Amino acid sequence: MRFAIGVDLGGTSLRVAAVDESGRVMERLSSPVKTLAGRDQVIDQLCELAQVLIAKHGASNNPEATLAGIGVGVPGIIQLETGQLRRSPNLPGWEDFRVRDEIERRLGAPNGIKIALDNDANLAALGEKWLGAGRDVDSMCLITLGTGVGGGLIFNGRIWHGFLGMAGELGHVMVSESGSQCGCGSTGCLETKASATAIVLKARAAIQSSSDSLLSKAVASGEPLTAALVFRCAQEGDDVARRIYASVGKYLGIGLAGLVNALNLPLYVLGGGVAEAWDAYAPAMFKQLQRSSYIYAEGGTRVVQSQLRGEAGLLGAAYLALDGALKAK
Amino acid sequence: MRFAIGVDLGGTSLRVAAVDESGRVMERLSSPVKTLAGRDQVIDQLCELAQVLIAKHGASNNPEATLAGIGVGVPGIIQLETGQLRRSPNLPGWEDFRVRDEIERRLGAPNGIKIALDNDANLAALGEKWLGAGRDVDSMCLITLGTGVGGGLIFNGRIWHGFLGMAGELGHVMVSESGSQCGCGSTGCLETKASATAIVLKARAAIQSSSDSLLSKAVASGEPLTAALVFRCAQEGDDVARRIYASVGKYLGIGLAGLVNALNLPLYVLGGGVAEAWDAYAPAMFKQLQRSSYIYAEGGTRVVQSQLRGEAGLLGAAYLALDGALKAK
Repeated sequence: MRFAIGVDLGGTSLRVAAVDESGRVMERLSSPVKTLAGRDQVIDQLCELAQVLIAKHGASNNPEATLAGIGVGVPGIIQLETGQLRRSPNLPGWEDFRVRDEIERRLGAPNGIKIALDNDANLAALGEKWLGAGRDVDSMCLITLGTGVGGGLIFNGRIWHGFLGMAGELGHVMVSESGSQCGCGSTGCLETKASATAIVLKARAAIQSSSDSLLSKAVASGEPLTAALVFRCAQEGDDVARRIYASVGKYLGIGLAGLVNALNLPLYVLGGGVAEAWDAYAPAMFKQLQRSSYIYAEGGTRVVQSQLRGEAGLLGAAYLALDGALKAK
Repeated sequence: MRFAIGVDLGGTSLRVAAVDESGRVMERLSSPVKTLAGRDQVIDQLCELAQVLIAKHGASNNPEATLAGIGVGVPGIIQLETGQLRRSPNLPGWEDFRVRDEIERRLGAPNGIKIALDNDANLAALGEKWLGAGRDVDSMCLITLGTGVGGGLIFNGRIWHGFLGMAGELGHVMVSESGSQCGCGSTGCLETKASATAIVLKARAAIQSSSDSLLSKAVASGEPLTAALVFRCAQEGDDVARRIYASVGKYLGIGLAGLVNALNLPLYVLGGGVAEAWDAYAPAMFKQLQRSSYIYAEGGTRVVQSQLRGEAGLLGAAYLALDGALKAK
């Protein structure tokens, strides 16, 4: 029995799982990330959890078990050859850190364990392809709608990295010519229209101009203003909240239409927290897609919600390590 | 010596060439297309020209020559499995025509010749990859700026078709939220901003509102209003013409930035007649790219003009047929 360790390292939590070739999670561990303690301590943490799982599920306890390797997902842009983080807004101080080397030094090299590193959205796409909504297709696109908007592309079963490892930056495709400033330096990016951050900004502005909406009342009564609260209000019929999600849907539709027209993939999967508000944004999204992509209008292209939800990245990380093993069989 | 017949079937002209494995054009023939005479006559024409070249350069005249096959580029969207044209605005009456079968029936089957069919922009991209600006990269994107705007994607040396064979419809990526109506049913498509048709429409409107520009005077003196005339006026310093091409550049920049951010390819090539006006649109295009894609701004990504110009599609068509042969070696 082959298995791998998957690691999902986020800005706030660290999750590590032992996953076998069939996709069964044998055990999972998690821990809050002490980003403030510095990157060395986070890597220590990560290696400790991995070692616990390797000791328990590996060959020392189970003679039939073979560890295929450790797959690690990190937020940010990775230089693939060097295993170095180039940019990572969620892991301050990690820029140009050689993450793979550091893990290898502590865990890999002495035991001959292979470490594979990739971007978290790419791995979420890979996980979704392996065990989720993309099981039956060869190629697909995942868009993650969270604090920011990210993406991963799978072409013929493999992550498409692009020549600098920067492919899949779908949050920074321009969807509005007159849109507002984005953190990336551009304007009108999908991220400024369909992220949780964008939803909260829009809701805050809406509350200021109309105080009698459900949303205004909820916030006035002390509820924290989140994208999830805006969704709840939309479901309860609040027009202000509904309009905010209709706008999310419209811009998702514009962004997706561009991808459909350029790539003609069979499947586009929406993941991340905001994607859960499907009922609130999907009608406007499909209407826009129908209008902006005659290829979509021809039929056959599917746009669906993630099936693995928060697990996609963790499972994709394990698959990254298993993939070599699975191919070698 | 292996060679192939490349065919470039356009709405107005038909070009056929015998091309050897090294990319040398052994001979080329061309003829105006009698679209009005109907598709059967056009196919007859095509087969006649191909037969002339096969007889002259094939085994009957040169014992060392082996015909790898015939590659045919047609404008429009092709169903790959059936070799059927699905849509083709430039070949009226050809919808759902089984182009490959028809050529095969007349030329292929009796002689065991293989026929390969693909979209003209895809083949222009393949040609550019084989012998032009893309010689040194594995993956690239070609955007053709002509009457319409088309595109072709090459990933790892092969045309990316998408699951329905419709990939590369780059003219229909939305670049302006408030843009005008496009023939595809959407609004604000790149085609409505950067095609020769769009340039002429804009120029016509500009002439009506200012009669003292160089452009107005040229048209008043009887010159036909074309994208090439607008370019000439821009080069001669006419502000109206310059602004029109600056707008072409801006929207090309927006469209390219989306592709750079999504795909992170090393090379984007601009072909077609409008691409020749490089000096007039490139400054605005690069400015917009720099602004709208932090991946572009990181450096390394190249945007260049086509090297093969009008020959790219013809050479790509020959390569499509040669590719199997080249691989079998």
